[in-house]
Amino acid sequence: MNLENQAGADVATMRWVGGTDGYLKMIDQTLLPTEFREIECRDVETVWEAIKKLRVRGAPAIGIAASYGIVLAVQTGTGTQRPDFDQRLIEAATYLAESRPTAVNLFWALDRMQKLAESSPDLSNSEMHELLLEEARLIETEDLKMCHQIGEVGAELLSKGDGVLTHCNAGGLATSGGGTALAVFFEAARQGKQIHVYADETRPLLQGARLTTWELMQRGIPVTLISDSMAGWVMKEGKIQAVVTGADRIAANGDAANKIGTYSVALLASIHEIPFYIAAPSSTFDLSLESGEEIPIEERLPEEITNGFGKQTAPDGVDVYNPAFDVTPAKYIQGIITERGLIEPVTKEEVMRVLSSDPV
Amino acid sequence: MNLENQAGADVATMRWVGGTDGYLKMIDQTLLPTEFREIECRDVETVWEAIKKLRVRGAPAIGIAASYGIVLAVQTGTGTQRPDFDQRLIEAATYLAESRPTAVNLFWALDRMQKLAESSPDLSNSEMHELLLEEARLIETEDLKMCHQIGEVGAELLSKGDGVLTHCNAGGLATSGGGTALAVFFEAARQGKQIHVYADETRPLLQGARLTTWELMQRGIPVTLISDSMAGWVMKEGKIQAVVTGADRIAANGDAANKIGTYSVALLASIHEIPFYIAAPSSTFDLSLESGEEIPIEERLPEEITNGFGKQTAPDGVDVYNPAFDVTPAKYIQGIITERGLIEPVTKEEVMRVLSSDPV
Repeated sequence: MNLENQAGADVATMRWVGGTDGYLKMIDQTLLPTEFREIECRDVETVWEAIKKLRVRGAPAIGIAASYGIVLAVQTGTGTQRPDFDQRLIEAATYLAESRPTAVNLFWALDRMQKLAESSPDLSNSEMHELLLEEARLIETEDLKMCHQIGEVGAELLSKGDGVLTHCNAGGLATSGGGTALAVFFEAARQGKQIHVYADETRPLLQGARLTTWELMQRGIPVTLISDSMAGWVMKEGKIQAVVTGADRIAANGDAANKIGTYSVALLASIHEIPFYIAAPSSTFDLSLESGEEIPIEERLPEEITNGFGKQTAPDGVDVYNPAFDVTPAKYIQGIITERGLIEPVTKEEVMRVLSSDPV
Repeated sequence: MNLENQAGADVATMRWVGGTDGYLKMIDQTLLPTEFREIECRDVETVWEAIKKLRVRGAPAIGIAASYGIVLAVQTGTGTQRPDFDQRLIEAATYLAESRPTAVNLFWALDRMQKLAESSPDLSNSEMHELLLEEARLIETEDLKMCHQIGEVGAELLSKGDGVLTHCNAGGLATSGGGTALAVFFEAARQGKQIHVYADETRPLLQGARLTTWELMQRGIPVTLISDSMAGWVMKEGKIQAVVTGADRIAANGDAANKIGTYSVALLASIHEIPFYIAAPSSTFDLSLESGEEIPIEERLPEEITNGFGKQTAPDGVDVYNPAFDVTPAKYIQGIITERGLIEPVTKEEVMRVLSSDPV
């Protein structure tokens, strides 16, 4: 099925429809690339389910969805007293925080929404509701701008004709629209650098096969799909000059959690002397963590591996290990591309220096 | 579906039924692990198709199937003149050799059958046919014995409680019955070493998920299924003390071609200082090749990646790269486990020394 005309080149990962009594519309990414369908989230439970089931995924996008989830959670609470309203907000934030444990943008966005409410205790419920919707919209537009800045910082690292490898999907679908790793490719292509992207299919949930290829093809950027097991071999064959992936959480020392398999790709790049970059907004940093060892790793259901393709592909009762993320030590990361500039070398000092500077 | 009782612990990958007018019965491995079905090959075309479509796979098993394919090819030629018989044999060998380009055991077995016919020009067609069937059976029983010897040589390399990783399926299903890499695990388990196997699912065709887990579970050996992208991470977590895989062709210098992804696994093992072993019979060596750079790599259809499991998982028209094998340089291989002993270090001299010695 050709979905090109249904989504257009600028993918609207999600959008808020209406005012404070509105709802959140988002692409159900589990159905791509064979079906393009949007779902309507009219309560916080539906947002929670969409995050949990990966209908919306990618650290920045999860953060935005959760912000709008807060707006939905207090919709029916505007007629109550302000303490009840605040209580409802806190409960919703606690609830949403449990949807996925690894992406720090989720906690960052929920925290920002909560702090806003705390800082304006004198506003009426409906005034507060308006302000929360504005904040969620601001988080979304900041994200769009941030993607563009990341693209500009990262595109400088690529040369004309480069082959670049990416893992999972750090594209428009993982953000409000521009992407992080893919924003780098989009900007490089826009500058006429004629890059060729190799996309790991990214088992178990195939975000690379389903989403990354789709986004790149929509923008007319040459992309070749490979299985994860081929990443080392295409490097050996000289097809890859740089690797760029996203991240879900980055510790103060630069250790980066991202989709399972990123660690392997980074090590393989290191052996082949190919620079490995992370592209992520500053909101992905969790400076409360000294190193990646403190990042909790989400384990997901065995069925993602044994029944991933609508068909059983392993024996009944087989034992499965299914960590959703891994942590790449900073020493394997050539640089971290942020909206505030490039962190290179990846050290605690350089992380602090770039994060405390202004966006580019 | 629990297939335990259908196949038993000793998997009969294939077996010849009857005399020279008999046929070859084999497990259709593309249906495992959810369906256990044997197919009957009554002509050489069916054998060719079974090899091409991976109903039978694994270098040693392909060699055995091809030998029986020769017996089938000359079945209808026994009434003709001997030159016609020989011509039929040569044509069948040429035809079968084109079924898969990488596994050297295929050419080795076909060559052995052809040489036998050349060395006995005075035999009648039916006498020659009998001799060819005997030779095919000999190739099969030699393989069984070889698997056992490989198991004994390899088991010495494992310690009690070791976690071991394998890629693809180098088990009983890849041979006449005992396996190569898995023979090592079977023998270690028999010796009470209580190993725990981690099996890469092995995209695109999932031989690890479908076959390796199945064989190990049938024998009661603890096995955990992971996706290929997790191999590096389980090493990092300290779960793996050794890696053992099979090989499809090994050059004179020890460079080894095996299922795509093996190269990545070997490099990841190297970084984690985990020994990486190849287990393969001496028939896997192609001493006419100086190094692995001369090994042809089979490229397979894009659909294996985009439509692998009855469901489309990538956009229509996406470009795909699908090499079926890669080549691991000897420097990343700690040792090669053969029926003639362990090749360690993996150098041209050590390859020659071990291959010219007697089986253990």
